[in-house]
Amino acid sequence: MTGAACGAIARSMTDDPPFSPALLPAGFVDLLTPDARTEAEGVDALMGVFASHGYNRVRPPLMEFEETLLAGSGASLADQSFRVMDPDTRRMMVLRPDITPQIARMAATRLGGAPRPLRLSYSGSCVVVLPAAAEESGRQIMQAGIELIGPDTPQADAEVVSVAAEALAQLGVPGVSFDLTMPPFVPALLEEAKVPAAVRPALMRALDRKDAAAVAELGGTLSETLITLLRAAGPAEQAVSLLARINLPPRSRAIIQRLADTVEAVRALNPTLRLTVDPVEFRGWKYHTGVCVTVFAVGRSEELGRGGRYLCNDNEPACGLTFRPDVLFRMIPPAAARPRVYLAPGADRQVAASLRKQGYATLAALGGVSAAGAKGAASTQAEAHGPEYDRAEARRLGCSHILSGATCTELE
Amino acid sequence: MTGAACGAIARSMTDDPPFSPALLPAGFVDLLTPDARTEAEGVDALMGVFASHGYNRVRPPLMEFEETLLAGSGASLADQSFRVMDPDTRRMMVLRPDITPQIARMAATRLGGAPRPLRLSYSGSCVVVLPAAAEESGRQIMQAGIELIGPDTPQADAEVVSVAAEALAQLGVPGVSFDLTMPPFVPALLEEAKVPAAVRPALMRALDRKDAAAVAELGGTLSETLITLLRAAGPAEQAVSLLARINLPPRSRAIIQRLADTVEAVRALNPTLRLTVDPVEFRGWKYHTGVCVTVFAVGRSEELGRGGRYLCNDNEPACGLTFRPDVLFRMIPPAAARPRVYLAPGADRQVAASLRKQGYATLAALGGVSAAGAKGAASTQAEAHGPEYDRAEARRLGCSHILSGATCTELE
Repeated sequence: MTGAACGAIARSMTDDPPFSPALLPAGFVDLLTPDARTEAEGVDALMGVFASHGYNRVRPPLMEFEETLLAGSGASLADQSFRVMDPDTRRMMVLRPDITPQIARMAATRLGGAPRPLRLSYSGSCVVVLPAAAEESGRQIMQAGIELIGPDTPQADAEVVSVAAEALAQLGVPGVSFDLTMPPFVPALLEEAKVPAAVRPALMRALDRKDAAAVAELGGTLSETLITLLRAAGPAEQAVSLLARINLPPRSRAIIQRLADTVEAVRALNPTLRLTVDPVEFRGWKYHTGVCVTVFAVGRSEELGRGGRYLCNDNEPACGLTFRPDVLFRMIPPAAARPRVYLAPGADRQVAASLRKQGYATLAALGGVSAAGAKGAASTQAEAHGPEYDRAEARRLGCSHILSGATCTELE
Repeated sequence: MTGAACGAIARSMTDDPPFSPALLPAGFVDLLTPDARTEAEGVDALMGVFASHGYNRVRPPLMEFEETLLAGSGASLADQSFRVMDPDTRRMMVLRPDITPQIARMAATRLGGAPRPLRLSYSGSCVVVLPAAAEESGRQIMQAGIELIGPDTPQADAEVVSVAAEALAQLGVPGVSFDLTMPPFVPALLEEAKVPAAVRPALMRALDRKDAAAVAELGGTLSETLITLLRAAGPAEQAVSLLARINLPPRSRAIIQRLADTVEAVRALNPTLRLTVDPVEFRGWKYHTGVCVTVFAVGRSEELGRGGRYLCNDNEPACGLTFRPDVLFRMIPPAAARPRVYLAPGADRQVAASLRKQGYATLAALGGVSAAGAKGAASTQAEAHGPEYDRAEARRLGCSHILSGATCTELE
């Protein structure tokens, strides 16, 4: 066997593809135009709606010490986080997998004395070690969201939902649905109903899978209630009215009442929002203590955003919602591009400036690249000149107009 | 000695401060309002000017494989880069210390077939292991810039300078100065003048320090020329005219001629720009092959941005300029805040929406926080109601107006 053949076999055995200079790590992408512009302008639009409701923009850093970022509510993120050592302090730093814990830290430290309700907004990129689910292919995750810190009221939960809905409407995202859940409800109910601890994990899994047969088998005296709860999931008003008729122990009843109050508060702000309720859903909510919300586009399974109620720095009531702009912006039309005007050599500079003010992009002739557009064409190459050459250049560069002297002409 | 006392001494010996939950690693900061908004809106303004000159926005990822990001012109960044292992491929990934090499990679791969001149713009954060200089305290560095790939002409160099100047004018940065340098010039001259290799490092250091005495001592037959070059640094037209009178060998002469042509091309686009030239400056330009530019605010030592000519992926002519928004935005007035309107309970929703459209921020009453603003006030606490309470709430939250029912009133 020759060395080369041996290498080929070794490669195929380790599944190591030949390295390409264009290769990016899985889950990291280059955004080009118009996607990069759509995302940036979309984030601006979201942040504008947040600001119009009094949310003040903050920008925490990309990295923090492990001790601060993964403390308290951040602990659940530990297994998703890239770490590096800070050569200064020899402490481990974490590349943030989520921005919410950073906002909580700011609210408790530098903004500890700021008046409540404290309304904060943010946007930025996070990095996770592995995607949360197979269909979420990104490891660099863009986030844009709001946190509302201080009040623990249905009105506060409802404001977050309502501001998020207004932001999506502003972006023009079609057919969105807000799904409300109450993660503390099922654990509280199983506890109050004295379901044996040994049965709970299997019962929780059955509820999570919406497996009515397994729930009936494992639920004991609670079976009927749990099956009714499973079936209550659906449009918010209908679910709330069903839930009101179920017999529940006091703590579970109070939790469900808070969900009903939140639905009512959302309705007061947004009577037409598509709102659903799933009382037994609890999966994926790691540090949440009250009403949670997932935002979907109707007919699609990807989440556009999610949020809910939690304890900011383990002691202060807070709720928030984070959008995933990278998912969101695949659902809206690309940002409108400026129409492009080619500036022929000698084009009037004042007219060009005025065209830019009117919303055109002007592309100046620079010499050094042939009309054929060959990459790396020698700059010393003799170039054709005159109107025909200029028009060809304009077309080659995707321009719809050409400015020669002070005259702007549309190309056929 | 007790164990506790021993621990205290060990801590004082290693200079390890007690850990605070508010502590961030050196060079990483939280931006609050208005700084975070000033930065975001400033970046938008920069990107808008770039777009108006036909620069298409792209967004490369925060991390790449070491093999791609630190290849070619990126190699000089290796010692500034944080690395982590990709658990998928077991390859090392780099947290980007600079965006320009990523743009070069894109230009050579996915955009290899796009027409030239290829105009690209970008903004985003980078992370460096240690700050480049003591006065630059950041390790998370924001960048916003442009790259112009294809033509190797004075017009291309001049466009980058001129677009950057227009962007700063748009932001309202006062009194900026563009300093042009030609890093390949001194090495070319020493080579052509056959300065002995053993002398060159000391001579380069003397030139770098502008130490005329040492230059005279080390420069041999070139001493007089080098001293004249040192003194030529200054306002662009004056420097160019001095340089034209110096006797130079052919390659050095051609390099200086290109600098003069660039000054002329900049002047054709921007006759009033404050433009200086320093022909012997070469420090800090690691991968540059032609005219370079540093942007200063007059009377301040911090760089606002820098850029220059290089070879994109080692073979295609390119030039670009990158701003440091984190430095830039300390020099402009804070972004104007929306005036804030407090929405008393029952405030008219349509009027509130119309106020938001007019540029106000509306802050809804949410209950659950006392007028005293005490953090974590119990939501069940009895609350005062009525106009006096609402006005107190409005003032506490920094509102200038209050909306009660459909009536908006300015607070005294």
